[in-house]
Amino acid sequence: MSVAIDFYFEFASPYGYLASTQIDDIGARYGREVVWHPIMLGAALKQTGARPLMQTPLKGAYLQRDVPRFARLLGVPFKEPPVMPANSLAASRAFVWLAPGDAVLARQLAKSVLHAHWGEGRDISTADQIADIASSLGIDRGDLLQAVADQRIKDVLKEQTEAAIERGVYGSPFIFVDGEPFWGADRLDQVERWLARGGW
Amino acid sequence: MSVAIDFYFEFASPYGYLASTQIDDIGARYGREVVWHPIMLGAALKQTGARPLMQTPLKGAYLQRDVPRFARLLGVPFKEPPVMPANSLAASRAFVWLAPGDAVLARQLAKSVLHAHWGEGRDISTADQIADIASSLGIDRGDLLQAVADQRIKDVLKEQTEAAIERGVYGSPFIFVDGEPFWGADRLDQVERWLARGGW
Repeated sequence: MSVAIDFYFEFASPYGYLASTQIDDIGARYGREVVWHPIMLGAALKQTGARPLMQTPLKGAYLQRDVPRFARLLGVPFKEPPVMPANSLAASRAFVWLAPGDAVLARQLAKSVLHAHWGEGRDISTADQIADIASSLGIDRGDLLQAVADQRIKDVLKEQTEAAIERGVYGSPFIFVDGEPFWGADRLDQVERWLARGGW
Repeated sequence: MSVAIDFYFEFASPYGYLASTQIDDIGARYGREVVWHPIMLGAALKQTGARPLMQTPLKGAYLQRDVPRFARLLGVPFKEPPVMPANSLAASRAFVWLAPGDAVLARQLAKSVLHAHWGEGRDISTADQIADIASSLGIDRGDLLQAVADQRIKDVLKEQTEAAIERGVYGSPFIFVDGEPFWGADRLDQVERWLARGGW
């Protein structure tokens, strides 16, 4: 199998959600594995001095129009969540806890959380809400609640976020194909063209 | 003829340049006039709190990779200018001076300035540099130098920039089709799909 595609996303990012609904299919079309990496985008925003989009004058209004429109174009569900940006710590910690033992299950959880948040408009800010979603996938509720409070898991997420920033990640989604960085859900077309042509 | 497409751009923005090489062809394919609007993006950035991309940590490095790559994909020339961001006051004032009398000539000047700056890597920060480019299009050098120093022209540009911000413009390029806003050179595909389908 060829080199994997690295898919960085923030659970609280609507564009991360939009890209998450497409990236596995894109990888599959070109025989590429896709490795998912949740990050805490707030840490990256500190580097660039940007604020969360929803809290930025003018950009917030555009986002509220652009995201539902983009979702309709892709044919994926979208419902505005009650709190934006959500606190994504519990979701991200649950992912990094699960991934080393069962990457497939971790990705299923990520997809379920993203769908609940952006597809159904549910809040995902608390460990209990993540545990509810995890339970429906057969993940033990008590184990998850313990894991997301575990200092070692907190540290792993922090290290992975720092490694992502070190690599140049400052937004969500951020995708690496053969070392080439692509930022934004609106770059999926370019990602696909890159895969089809082997660069240009 | 149907409603015109409004194309807002900043001369100092590489993504504005990339979009400028495509937008007229896109309009022509769907029988739409395209109205060009140069803006002083710095005024909009003050609203959103953003800094010029090149001066932003992480984003600047991405930009230096992304812009040439995007230009190669579109098949348009790109050479990094000596100064970024350039001072685009003279270019923008020259445009708003010419446009009311001869919109075609104003657009020719804009294209020549954008090509000189982003296609050939030439500086465009001074009135003399803009006058050089204008001369090659048959525009009187003295008239242009006088116009870009004229307080009435300065005021027109300021008013047009303020009107753009009022409409929600905060980046370059920014495109309105049938009242729908699209931000970014990477949204040209969506602009085209919107035109083809009449929305979605």
